[in-house]
Amino acid sequence: MTTALRVTVWNEYRHEKSSTHPASKIYPEGMHSAIAQGLREYPGLEVRTATLDEPEHGLTDDVLANTDVLTWWGHMAHGQVSDEIVAKVHARVLDGMGLIVLHSGHFSKIFKRLMGTTCDLKWREADDNERIWVVEPGHPIAEGLGETIELADEEMYGERFDIPAPETLVFVSWFKGGEVFRSGCCYTRGRGKIFYFRPGHESYPTYYNPEVRRVIANAVRWAAPSAGPKPVFGNAKPRQ
Amino acid sequence: MTTALRVTVWNEYRHEKSSTHPASKIYPEGMHSAIAQGLREYPGLEVRTATLDEPEHGLTDDVLANTDVLTWWGHMAHGQVSDEIVAKVHARVLDGMGLIVLHSGHFSKIFKRLMGTTCDLKWREADDNERIWVVEPGHPIAEGLGETIELADEEMYGERFDIPAPETLVFVSWFKGGEVFRSGCCYTRGRGKIFYFRPGHESYPTYYNPEVRRVIANAVRWAAPSAGPKPVFGNAKPRQ
Amino acid sequence: MTTALRVTVWNEYRHEKSSTHPASKIYPEGMHSAIAQGLREYPGLEVRTATLDEPEHGLTDDVLANTDVLTWWGHMAHGQVSDEIVAKVHARVLDGMGLIVLHSGHFSKIFKRLMGTTCDLKWREADDNERIWVVEPGHPIAEGLGETIELADEEMYGERFDIPAPETLVFVSWFKGGEVFRSGCCYTRGRGKIFYFRPGHESYPTYYNPEVRRVIANAVRWAAPSAGPKPVFGNAKPRQ
Amino acid sequence: MTTALRVTVWNEYRHEKSSTHPASKIYPEGMHSAIAQGLREYPGLEVRTATLDEPEHGLTDDVLANTDVLTWWGHMAHGQVSDEIVAKVHARVLDGMGLIVLHSGHFSKIFKRLMGTTCDLKWREADDNERIWVVEPGHPIAEGLGETIELADEEMYGERFDIPAPETLVFVSWFKGGEVFRSGCCYTRGRGKIFYFRPGHESYPTYYNPEVRRVIANAVRWAAPSAGPKPVFGNAKPRQ
Repeated sequence: MTTALRVTVWNEYRHEKSSTHPASKIYPEGMHSAIAQGLREYPGLEVRTATLDEPEHGLTDDVLANTDVLTWWGHMAHGQVSDEIVAKVHARVLDGMGLIVLHSGHFSKIFKRLMGTTCDLKWREADDNERIWVVEPGHPIAEGLGETIELADEEMYGERFDIPAPETLVFVSWFKGGEVFRSGCCYTRGRGKIFYFRPGHESYPTYYNPEVRRVIANAVRWAAPSAGPKPVFGNAKPRQ
Repeated sequence: MTTALRVTVWNEYRHEKSSTHPASKIYPEGMHSAIAQGLREYPGLEVRTATLDEPEHGLTDDVLANTDVLTWWGHMAHGQVSDEIVAKVHARVLDGMGLIVLHSGHFSKIFKRLMGTTCDLKWREADDNERIWVVEPGHPIAEGLGETIELADEEMYGERFDIPAPETLVFVSWFKGGEVFRSGCCYTRGRGKIFYFRPGHESYPTYYNPEVRRVIANAVRWAAPSAGPKPVFGNAKPRQ
Repeated sequence: MTTALRVTVWNEYRHEKSSTHPASKIYPEGMHSAIAQGLREYPGLEVRTATLDEPEHGLTDDVLANTDVLTWWGHMAHGQVSDEIVAKVHARVLDGMGLIVLHSGHFSKIFKRLMGTTCDLKWREADDNERIWVVEPGHPIAEGLGETIELADEEMYGERFDIPAPETLVFVSWFKGGEVFRSGCCYTRGRGKIFYFRPGHESYPTYYNPEVRRVIANAVRWAAPSAGPKPVFGNAKPRQ
Repeated sequence: MTTALRVTVWNEYRHEKSSTHPASKIYPEGMHSAIAQGLREYPGLEVRTATLDEPEHGLTDDVLANTDVLTWWGHMAHGQVSDEIVAKVHARVLDGMGLIVLHSGHFSKIFKRLMGTTCDLKWREADDNERIWVVEPGHPIAEGLGETIELADEEMYGERFDIPAPETLVFVSWFKGGEVFRSGCCYTRGRGKIFYFRPGHESYPTYYNPEVRRVIANAVRWAAPSAGPKPVFGNAKPRQ
């Protein structure tokens, strides 16, 4: 019997609360609700949500200790995420918690801290169409997909994306306006697995797309903690 | 409900049939029997065996089509493996079948063909003791292990190991005689996942070691095929 | 005082000899002449050429022994390259000779042998425009380039490109028709460095493009042999 | 004509000033002097030094702007390096300056920030002997070496070393006491190249060893900035 994987879907949840912003119509209950709903379509996942304006951003010690994989969406309020919470999330990732960073989360404190780079990129809000190509079709995160995911309207993100070269590059995006982007990037930091997935601008219904949902569910499973050895550091006696 | 993973344990099975060879005492029913027995301790695996001297080396089209992960042990008779069978195994790996290459299998035709290099190394049969260090403790293949696997007696394999740099290096071995070795190496070729695992000389009871068995079972699960998109090659119409 | 790097530019040289083929107009002296001419614009390179229809394809033991970096263009006659010569080139690469594989050389015997995969891809001859994006701007092969290389007309190559994930991915191409491609891929095999570079269809004047020439010259320098230790293989006495 | 590479050798320079510490005998003018002296044996390098107790730690804006490659040794006073200087060094690395991190520099603020992990490890001061094996003999950093570098006495560093998997693993160390360590690790962050090199405990004359000096000189050359495209980030107009 396998235990359910405990997923916490974190969202900044600001755009959606502004009645004049398109996100308030597309995601009236917040993007986290749509992402969580998508994950609940898959068996074996126990999903809860947490948002910026909750106490401790909804990421208390207890929540973090009981999260196997955390997904992260943020955009306009990265700076309001407390450094203390970021340090706790960082420690949990190194200890094995999976982390799925979505779209504008590329500029979150936690992603930049884990990557060590600026994580900067090109962007354009212009209803570009995006075609996400699977370049590593044997990878578990590509399970159940076709050759491409077609998104009729999305924000463009273009290279140079200032990240460490991913350990595995699963997806590359094509944009009508002429750009490409490394859209699905796997990393290991400490014992934790990290996946960055590009699409998901707040002004488009991307998180209702079944293939996007599939990718996030696949990524959550891929990033599940493994019960490997807890590293022992510090002064050590000879083994021989 | 998950379907069982279908594993075929392939063995050259020659040393064990020579009554003067230590392998005939340690593995009277062949190393494949010990490896298969080890895998059967883990749930969700459906294990069969195949050996060199069976027709088509036991790897008929039907067997290969119904194998999710193949494990490979060979040593003295690499040259007797038919090129036709190797071509079929190669095609199946590229199509998604997992491949676990054990010990002296580093010099098998199939491993050399997949790697593109000589796969040569240093060796010494001298009852070295080996300490396998987990260097990537968050990797699924390290699940359930401690910091090291201690093998009191093993053949030494030493660097330079002439392989492409592994996509993930999970284990590094220390040998009493002064050598190190990249002992657990992950690769993707086509849609197939490949894991090379060092220990397993025929003169030692290595495949009865519970941690070695654990690694092989973990590797089999990690190398399970994913239902990703089947690549489409050749002349293509524009998408736009 | 630095010794010149000895470069051999190899070309199939068949399309260009067919008077009805556009290549006969664009490259009247063969694509190898254009590639060699481009390299000669850079200091420190001593460039010669070799072609399929010369004895031993122009790749005698003496030529190979005196080549630091070999560039390879082939297309319609991959099957006519002798297996014996391929084996010699393979051995030289593992021994440290650099190899730059150009465009349709993806299907050459030598590239497939070094990669261990089919090296298959999508293609279309349709005057697509190609935009090559630099994704790793700190890499020596990107030296002197802008953010992109723009090619008004090229053959399209699209993903899935069935190669091992490159050790470093330097370029990604965008095509008007909707595809992307990993266009600049670095590998190490044995002591040899290998670079695959996508553009260069025989019906377009790509090898006169100064930025394409710059990339090839940069790649040649990057792939230069290093005087590292010659690996020692086989039975080894203890070091301790 | 090639311009000299401008190298700044940075050292904490505290152990050596303590008259009771062995370092004061071994490196009476500081470890930086020995490292700089070693680099000056190689042509094409213009070497200066900088230390913690100089104003701005010797790393003024002017010094950083005129440094192509920085080497870093620190141990007991990592915490005294100003965050402001670390931020400047970080920005310079992302902009292309090479960084060679030596021994106990694994715990420096700059290395941890670039890696995103704890960079923790096992250690033992016990006159272990260390044997550094070249595992990637074709890499420029291995130029001029034999198969191993033998250090009669060194501090032990052992796995698990909590770093991101290196892009290229050039060296692996063997220690008499039974440990292994990934001793030579290459990274790219932004446009900068980073090399971590293990040996160099302050109580041993390691930086007088000609092979250790050779590695540092090779690494400095490998990490030299490339004149690739300066990334353009932010809002972007369509290219098509």
